[in-house]
Amino acid sequence: MKVNKEVQSLGMPWEKEYGYAQGVKVDDTVYLAGQVGHDENGNLENGMENQVRRAYANIKKLLDGFGFAMDDVVEEVLYVMDMGNAFMARAKVGKEMYSNPMQIPSTLIQVSRLALDGQLVEIKIIAKKA
Amino acid sequence: MKVNKEVQSLGMPWEKEYGYAQGVKVDDTVYLAGQVGHDENGNLENGMENQVRRAYANIKKLLDGFGFAMDDVVEEVLYVMDMGNAFMARAKVGKEMYSNPMQIPSTLIQVSRLALDGQLVEIKIIAKKA
Amino acid sequence: MKVNKEVQSLGMPWEKEYGYAQGVKVDDTVYLAGQVGHDENGNLENGMENQVRRAYANIKKLLDGFGFAMDDVVEEVLYVMDMGNAFMARAKVGKEMYSNPMQIPSTLIQVSRLALDGQLVEIKIIAKKA
Repeated sequence: MKVNKEVQSLGMPWEKEYGYAQGVKVDDTVYLAGQVGHDENGNLENGMENQVRRAYANIKKLLDGFGFAMDDVVEEVLYVMDMGNAFMARAKVGKEMYSNPMQIPSTLIQVSRLALDGQLVEIKIIAKKA
Repeated sequence: MKVNKEVQSLGMPWEKEYGYAQGVKVDDTVYLAGQVGHDENGNLENGMENQVRRAYANIKKLLDGFGFAMDDVVEEVLYVMDMGNAFMARAKVGKEMYSNPMQIPSTLIQVSRLALDGQLVEIKIIAKKA
Repeated sequence: MKVNKEVQSLGMPWEKEYGYAQGVKVDDTVYLAGQVGHDENGNLENGMENQVRRAYANIKKLLDGFGFAMDDVVEEVLYVMDMGNAFMARAKVGKEMYSNPMQIPSTLIQVSRLALDGQLVEIKIIAKKA
């Protein structure tokens, strides 16, 4: 691997089982795997808003590790199990996480199922430094 | 914000409510939020084909604003509520919008629900200048 | 089209019908349309694992054509019709296709329907050379 490529994990048991990275940085762009509302032990938070907040905390942690800021995000896709609750939760948490959420392109989609039992949201991120 | 980053909105009421941008340009790449088949007043068009055509019109408007052309699109993801109608509508409208649609990678997925009541399609775009 | 842009197809009948490319390369980045588990004649493989394996074979073929390797993949999104079977199939086939799958960000989403009758999986790829 060349020096301008970096990879990160969060040490979750399912990372090894499935076989994937949580994020990769190549040059000025970071691609994150869909982030989930679990704590450091892999336990899901209760309810949509808590899962959304924790998923963003995991996004921030990974971006920090690459030397990127939340404001470097250029694409969000939120895959959710409940559109109404997810809209309200992202509206609230987006204001907490971004200095100005109105600079962040975001796409919100209700899907049939996510990977973990009880999982309500998964957030896929691309970040690119200006 | 550095000079090589630009952001656009379409002035829709839900942009401020949810907190997001319709698109961002960083260097030679544009990322658009999922585009929807609504007019300048935020009213959805009737039926799949009209919504698809209007969503592409909004895509074109945003790309124009960044100095990009439709032919700079390198990724389309269409999230739709009806695969059959969406396939036919994209086949028809793609020929109207691109000088050659066979140069545009496209992914078509039927999902459970989209953000607005009555919304049948949402189109996420990445464009990159060659 | 400028010389730093290349496009590929797989010669499937639905490419012309719908109007799209299987992949485009601009500079150091490749964007593939969602790849499907069909053979050279467009026939779908039987069952999730075989469709996953064949979809990756088509990904590899396209990346090869652009001078890219599987290890250049920076984003996978798997849209699937059955989360449990897809998780197991990707875990197995990922180890066959990547020198180290734990360097590949991957997102796995169960959706309502895919484009072809009998289609169980579609895999969207971005690759970027380090």
